[in-house]
Amino acid sequence: MKLATYKDGSRDGQLVVVSRDLSTTHYATGIANTLQQALDDWNFIAPQLQDLYVTLNQGKARHAFAFDSRMCMAPLPRAYQWADGSAYINHVELVRAARNSEVPATFYTDPLMYQGGSDDFLGPNDDVVVPSEAYGIDFEAEIAVVTGDVPMGATPEQALEGVRLLMLANDVSLRNLIPAELAKGFGFLQSKPATAFSPVAVTPDELGSAWEQGRVHLTLQSTWNGKVVGRCDAGPDMTFHFGQLIAHICKTRNVRAGSIVGSGTVSNKGIEADGQKVWPKGYSCIAEQRAIETLVSGQPRTEFMRFGDTIRIEMNGRDGASLFGAINQVIAPVA
Amino acid sequence: MKLATYKDGSRDGQLVVVSRDLSTTHYATGIANTLQQALDDWNFIAPQLQDLYVTLNQGKARHAFAFDSRMCMAPLPRAYQWADGSAYINHVELVRAARNSEVPATFYTDPLMYQGGSDDFLGPNDDVVVPSEAYGIDFEAEIAVVTGDVPMGATPEQALEGVRLLMLANDVSLRNLIPAELAKGFGFLQSKPATAFSPVAVTPDELGSAWEQGRVHLTLQSTWNGKVVGRCDAGPDMTFHFGQLIAHICKTRNVRAGSIVGSGTVSNKGIEADGQKVWPKGYSCIAEQRAIETLVSGQPRTEFMRFGDTIRIEMNGRDGASLFGAINQVIAPVA
Repeated sequence: MKLATYKDGSRDGQLVVVSRDLSTTHYATGIANTLQQALDDWNFIAPQLQDLYVTLNQGKARHAFAFDSRMCMAPLPRAYQWADGSAYINHVELVRAARNSEVPATFYTDPLMYQGGSDDFLGPNDDVVVPSEAYGIDFEAEIAVVTGDVPMGATPEQALEGVRLLMLANDVSLRNLIPAELAKGFGFLQSKPATAFSPVAVTPDELGSAWEQGRVHLTLQSTWNGKVVGRCDAGPDMTFHFGQLIAHICKTRNVRAGSIVGSGTVSNKGIEADGQKVWPKGYSCIAEQRAIETLVSGQPRTEFMRFGDTIRIEMNGRDGASLFGAINQVIAPVA
Repeated sequence: MKLATYKDGSRDGQLVVVSRDLSTTHYATGIANTLQQALDDWNFIAPQLQDLYVTLNQGKARHAFAFDSRMCMAPLPRAYQWADGSAYINHVELVRAARNSEVPATFYTDPLMYQGGSDDFLGPNDDVVVPSEAYGIDFEAEIAVVTGDVPMGATPEQALEGVRLLMLANDVSLRNLIPAELAKGFGFLQSKPATAFSPVAVTPDELGSAWEQGRVHLTLQSTWNGKVVGRCDAGPDMTFHFGQLIAHICKTRNVRAGSIVGSGTVSNKGIEADGQKVWPKGYSCIAEQRAIETLVSGQPRTEFMRFGDTIRIEMNGRDGASLFGAINQVIAPVA
């Protein structure tokens, strides 16, 4: 099923069920008011939402109305956890190669993840508000899952059973703040502003066979200022699957319902063509394109984002239809 | 006023008002069910809680009953943000000196903070469950504040106005996991298991003149296995006050209501006595004691915690009475 959160002036919004084709929607009133509430009691509430979803898809829901993604907050407008992986090691390899730094061997066995802020997420059409263009504004197109309760010590296979929903994310990064912040050793704080999520969160069964072994085997499309810059395969180059990422957190803690776990920037390996290395699938963040440019020609050419720039992130299912709706944001200065 | 969250089998527990002397309590039913709900609408709800608090202190609340801290969850059993500072630079200086590493000059002007997990906090009497003693189990006695909404770009003075409540925290650290994790560059994830908080959260006015310029001028007492190991002054050596810590996050983001911001390990400078440097106030985490031992005698003597160890963290007000109730935990293996 597909779920979204409609703006209603409250902090957590109003849970709605959305039809498979994203054309109609229906308030989940009487079942659950918010998505977190549904996740807190998933086994009891999900079947009721599923019943409404079936009725909605059949065109028989009595109070259905047209779905408008501009009414959406993030599916979870705030969450108790946002932990983002860097599961496409190819991305790390490219960025490191561009600065002549090797990827430590452990990076291929021990996932790289950071704990992000989760108190103030952006809806799919909310502006990305940044104090200064000089911070080096970059988008990062990712896939994220929402979990149920996963206990400390869970194996990757057990953790994978805890995946309740999938979403897309734009994990905005302020590239010029990152080197100094990471040099302090305590991870990201100022260099990761609010993250945005797709209009709709979907249960894994909506992906059919494209959801396989904890990976999404579909194409993530990134469109910057109207130009498609990335058509990246999310499946094959994902070094760690979502169960491994969740289990990584579970080594020393319980992961509680409503935790969001991200894939990191989706990234594909380059290929050899006419004796040259090329990256025909493009990129899911500008930093990667700049790394490629540095590798190829010695310096980056593509600048980071400016105020007024737009970024659109979307993924189609195997039927060609949009699975999650589109993230569609404008970069904006502080009002 | 003083607020706590009573266990009721739910994830967020039940908000209670606690008398100033921690002897009696009263459900906040009819005002707010949970502390997060009160924080979400503080200006409307806080005066009603305050009225109940006054009545409770006068012994006139109709359904008051004896307060029992064993019934407490963390005041916020889960939160949308837990960002922990390292505001006592003396602690950083000691730990770095012990490993012959200098403190970068920027550490005195730019707060060191990390984003922590906030989906699964521990109550004040909950066991600290750790998979292995070999991880190097350490307590960290800290002060934490709970904020209201603080907008992006807030100054330290504006951010300080956003402090709604104060608590104590035991920010448990797994010391032997930290070096490898921090070497990866993305901060703490596995080396910081669930954090515990004091039974009671209090509004700043409860501290009277001990709350001054964003610092708590009182003594934080840490008792390990029944022995007092720390009587640390929380005020004078706090390099960055809470307004500065909150404003640090606000550089590129909004901080939303119910965010918890920690001070980091409370730590005091050593003094010269008989030509020797000594630290008469003791320590608020074992790592600091080990650093001192290394500085004095070339190697650490004090081992980290073992299963069955107890840790008690408490702070008295200027009247000598416990302000927040005690954190009182046992270290335990996974069941």
